[in-house]
Amino acid sequence: MKTKVNVGIIGAGRIGRIHAENLIQRIRGTQVVAIADVMINSAQEVAQQLLIKQVTKDFNDIIHNEDIDAVIICSPTDTHTTIIKETAAAGKHIFCEKPIDLSIIKIKEALKVVEKAGIRLMVGFNRRFDPNFFKIRTMIKENKVGDLHLIRITSRDPEPPPPEYIKVSGGIFMDMAIHDFDMARYLVGNDVREVYAKGMVRIDPAIGDAGDYDTAITTLTFENQVICSIDNSRKAVYGYDQRVEAFGSGGMVSTDNTTIDNHYYLNENGRHAALPLHFFMDRYTQSYINEMQAFIDSIMNEKPLPVAGQDGLESVRIAQAAKISCQENRPVHMNEIGK
Amino acid sequence: MKTKVNVGIIGAGRIGRIHAENLIQRIRGTQVVAIADVMINSAQEVAQQLLIKQVTKDFNDIIHNEDIDAVIICSPTDTHTTIIKETAAAGKHIFCEKPIDLSIIKIKEALKVVEKAGIRLMVGFNRRFDPNFFKIRTMIKENKVGDLHLIRITSRDPEPPPPEYIKVSGGIFMDMAIHDFDMARYLVGNDVREVYAKGMVRIDPAIGDAGDYDTAITTLTFENQVICSIDNSRKAVYGYDQRVEAFGSGGMVSTDNTTIDNHYYLNENGRHAALPLHFFMDRYTQSYINEMQAFIDSIMNEKPLPVAGQDGLESVRIAQAAKISCQENRPVHMNEIGK
Amino acid sequence: MKTKVNVGIIGAGRIGRIHAENLIQRIRGTQVVAIADVMINSAQEVAQQLLIKQVTKDFNDIIHNEDIDAVIICSPTDTHTTIIKETAAAGKHIFCEKPIDLSIIKIKEALKVVEKAGIRLMVGFNRRFDPNFFKIRTMIKENKVGDLHLIRITSRDPEPPPPEYIKVSGGIFMDMAIHDFDMARYLVGNDVREVYAKGMVRIDPAIGDAGDYDTAITTLTFENQVICSIDNSRKAVYGYDQRVEAFGSGGMVSTDNTTIDNHYYLNENGRHAALPLHFFMDRYTQSYINEMQAFIDSIMNEKPLPVAGQDGLESVRIAQAAKISCQENRPVHMNEIGK
Amino acid sequence: MKTKVNVGIIGAGRIGRIHAENLIQRIRGTQVVAIADVMINSAQEVAQQLLIKQVTKDFNDIIHNEDIDAVIICSPTDTHTTIIKETAAAGKHIFCEKPIDLSIIKIKEALKVVEKAGIRLMVGFNRRFDPNFFKIRTMIKENKVGDLHLIRITSRDPEPPPPEYIKVSGGIFMDMAIHDFDMARYLVGNDVREVYAKGMVRIDPAIGDAGDYDTAITTLTFENQVICSIDNSRKAVYGYDQRVEAFGSGGMVSTDNTTIDNHYYLNENGRHAALPLHFFMDRYTQSYINEMQAFIDSIMNEKPLPVAGQDGLESVRIAQAAKISCQENRPVHMNEIGK
Repeated sequence: MKTKVNVGIIGAGRIGRIHAENLIQRIRGTQVVAIADVMINSAQEVAQQLLIKQVTKDFNDIIHNEDIDAVIICSPTDTHTTIIKETAAAGKHIFCEKPIDLSIIKIKEALKVVEKAGIRLMVGFNRRFDPNFFKIRTMIKENKVGDLHLIRITSRDPEPPPPEYIKVSGGIFMDMAIHDFDMARYLVGNDVREVYAKGMVRIDPAIGDAGDYDTAITTLTFENQVICSIDNSRKAVYGYDQRVEAFGSGGMVSTDNTTIDNHYYLNENGRHAALPLHFFMDRYTQSYINEMQAFIDSIMNEKPLPVAGQDGLESVRIAQAAKISCQENRPVHMNEIGK
Repeated sequence: MKTKVNVGIIGAGRIGRIHAENLIQRIRGTQVVAIADVMINSAQEVAQQLLIKQVTKDFNDIIHNEDIDAVIICSPTDTHTTIIKETAAAGKHIFCEKPIDLSIIKIKEALKVVEKAGIRLMVGFNRRFDPNFFKIRTMIKENKVGDLHLIRITSRDPEPPPPEYIKVSGGIFMDMAIHDFDMARYLVGNDVREVYAKGMVRIDPAIGDAGDYDTAITTLTFENQVICSIDNSRKAVYGYDQRVEAFGSGGMVSTDNTTIDNHYYLNENGRHAALPLHFFMDRYTQSYINEMQAFIDSIMNEKPLPVAGQDGLESVRIAQAAKISCQENRPVHMNEIGK
Repeated sequence: MKTKVNVGIIGAGRIGRIHAENLIQRIRGTQVVAIADVMINSAQEVAQQLLIKQVTKDFNDIIHNEDIDAVIICSPTDTHTTIIKETAAAGKHIFCEKPIDLSIIKIKEALKVVEKAGIRLMVGFNRRFDPNFFKIRTMIKENKVGDLHLIRITSRDPEPPPPEYIKVSGGIFMDMAIHDFDMARYLVGNDVREVYAKGMVRIDPAIGDAGDYDTAITTLTFENQVICSIDNSRKAVYGYDQRVEAFGSGGMVSTDNTTIDNHYYLNENGRHAALPLHFFMDRYTQSYINEMQAFIDSIMNEKPLPVAGQDGLESVRIAQAAKISCQENRPVHMNEIGK
Repeated sequence: MKTKVNVGIIGAGRIGRIHAENLIQRIRGTQVVAIADVMINSAQEVAQQLLIKQVTKDFNDIIHNEDIDAVIICSPTDTHTTIIKETAAAGKHIFCEKPIDLSIIKIKEALKVVEKAGIRLMVGFNRRFDPNFFKIRTMIKENKVGDLHLIRITSRDPEPPPPEYIKVSGGIFMDMAIHDFDMARYLVGNDVREVYAKGMVRIDPAIGDAGDYDTAITTLTFENQVICSIDNSRKAVYGYDQRVEAFGSGGMVSTDNTTIDNHYYLNENGRHAALPLHFFMDRYTQSYINEMQAFIDSIMNEKPLPVAGQDGLESVRIAQAAKISCQENRPVHMNEIGK
């Protein structure tokens, strides 16, 4: 067992800052040694605020820093596999934000390198570490739901991203629903056999012009006969809506959204209460802490990671199947999608 | 065991109609034979709608009708004890609306006549038969709450009655909180030792001019050391607010209000839901049916009534103690109030 | 405007009794003149309890009774269209339980006869009259949800029917989900363009042996681009689960289940509360009253019925599309299903 | 405006650590320069973990450290006034944990010294900074409740403190209900005129032997005619129960407990959900951060503190009135208690 895990962070954008702050202020057994960003100003700003010693433009400085045990990859998606392969070759453990890549071939290549190098790769599906969803998974494992029959997931964002982002995002399934596909796999503990997705453009024609959908319902059929329905919207005026329900022979477990506060108010017009926490930064605060602690603990104790590279691959495959299903209006078998 | 209980109803006002309709349409094992009201038109109207054969101005016609086994007294409060005594003398069972009377001496006289006559008298504390409160009482009895330590009751009306009614009502404690005093006794299953009440005039100065309060908090101390807090208001703009909580060594059981429907709506301004059912006619629909069924069943099976004449007396005594406590600003021991 | 609608009831089984009781005890402006059942004992029993004058084995006695204005058809499904056609020919208005028939051709024939006869036919989709779902529809109409994007329906029974019933039921889509298909159409206020359904046998292999499914997720795509997901299960151990959610550009409105009571209990093991009302007789009590009142009122005031024969046809068409979709594992366009 | 507030902490026990951690990790505009504790080991441990430079046994080292602008007093209650007076004399601002002292005379002396010194003293009534209670206060201020008529506070601990602590605690009113007395004053925005309290020993006779109560209901009457009921228990088996309700002419606002998670589970036995957060460390995490940020911000911006020394005095006076009321079984006017 190690006594401390030294980490380097690649990428000083929004998610890079969240991880940096958590690692420094809230995670036991770790130290942030260096941070890299091609936008050196961003890296410097974070380093100054959080007292990180090494700052660099070049991620290679981090990969080849002998003091560093593990690398947190928060750079743009299209740089992920390159960095993963070089980091793995340098013998360091990896935490990589989702999606690993939009290309299944590239992901598979990267995973091969990881495997050969014998290092550990964890993918940032933070929602698995949300206390509410974790509770549902725990209750399923404890057989409180009995044989699992149905999963329902509602996942709606408060605002669509800007159209220019939509174009490079890989689309609603790859960019947004990918979290829900992973959640479904996590809850069911099994692999998907078939995907049927129905997408619509209801919020903004510009999203359609960019070749994407903004509203969708996806049906997943699992190898173990569980069926799952996911509904997604890019815009819920009431904020971030993230709910999950698992139903089986023994009962049902659901989770409500977490609200801004717990007040309720009654006047002559009805009963009023607070909205859900507005977006992922508020809602998933604790899940980001928990996932990073799990990553550090796994490395320290040389135990398997709770989210593997394979999980990163599978979610991308499902997203691709969903996109094809939508475009061709037919159920898509997972065999059709490169494994 | 009887096979059918024939009843006569005295009083064709609002509550008389509720009982008449329930007895005819929803209660098993009974038949309404006659209805009386000094306002003969009211009695005729009800009789016509509900196909009641005998209609009369004179309640004696009901008391002395040989076909009648039981009498439902829904006439004004100041006529109750006279009718009770005569009905008891005629050997018929009695259901009497609350309060039995505003005078403790008159109530005691009436109860003596009832006792001598060997007939049964039930007082209309319908809330004991509300499914929610009944559930709380049941859970207390089943020891789910353990040793009972605290009771909290919230009881608020949507609108104050007209000032002219306030004057003859006996005041907020005798007219309104009396239900809550009975509820506390019902839940605790014990007698009150001491009362402290604090009353205010906050809603309408006319209520103060009539010598009454419109807002109050009452603390009841029971013989078995349970303490209970009751808050009353004559006007809640959001409707009828009727909640109860029991707390003890084993846990807590509470009941929410019943709402108009179960929808909830989220938009950019928050989460909205329906108001509580607006007043006692909506909220306690089922409790009126259940209490009348309990009355009829007890008579048919010759079993004790679930609410005795003594319960009617005790609630009036507590109301009187509360009024004195308020006026003299001191705790009042129940020994001070005629037994 | 008529002053009274005289009705005859055909079928004295479970649902026939519910309607009889409601018509006699709770519906204004009507009188039950006769009841028919081939099981004459059943009809006699109901007639005796509810004081219905005419009792007969032969439904023709009802159809040709000159005193009768409207006929309530509660007989087995396979007799519906025959009775509808003869009743229509006799010039009487009709309330018919769902489904009208399992055969689209037969339904269309019956609707033609109804149209020619110029009488009114209402189909018993009682859930439209549930106060909770009615509230959701009202809020959609009032534009509270804005442009409607998504509908989610959860509909689970406490117990599967016996296998012998399954065989003649038409299957889970025709027998059970048909209510949800109508609910979706009611909420969206539009017609379905395409259906995709995924069915599984997870509860009882005997259901599979009977050629049916017991667990299903159906995706409906409406002409106006609303997409809807419905999940069904024949067995929820916690009772009857009936929830609906509508989401759009202006917000979301959902409805919770109605529970047995409103208590909640906290002890060292958590917070506990009551189950949903156990089955349709408890849950939809009010909806049966409301739908029958709507039927009687429409006839009295010579106004259009709230659920038309065409609604009965459409729900059967969707059920058939769902069945084909499941069997052939492909989305089914409604053009494929006889109109 | 200052750009940074340097603080020293006196007392390295449980609450001292909470404040140290928050100041260092979560509060903007401040630096912890030193920590003192007569138990030097405790101070050293905290200093080491949190990288605080100066550690001392003697609080005078902190008071006279020229780099320090403000002092956080977390030492035992009986040392508070001495330290307050010396800190004030040294011209430093003060944050002091509640209660300031058990003696009203000593508190008044200390407040005089503070006033003369012209420095700021804030008392640690952290619950005012809980987002839920803050929301209620905000809504009252925004006139959402209209004229305030009633306040209800439920405040129950998961476990009584050890009997030896009970003896020196000042009793349930001074030690526990004091938070609720301050909450009532905070919500009402007015002073108490009269107190009536009823105390019982129901949980542990040892608490009675120590001259204290473990269960109580207190009625507060405010100068502005608001009446308030507070119920306290030293032991709720389901954890920490902290609820508040404000009722007035415009409506009602309440707050529920915050729960461990938001799941709910239905099986054949009912609906189950998570318990409230177990104790003050979990429940009031955010309130401790918010109150310390408010303290630092007030000093930096030279603005009035949100909780004044006078608030600390008033809550102790109410606690004393409650104790006398209980012992003498009579309402106690606040004029009776030294001002």
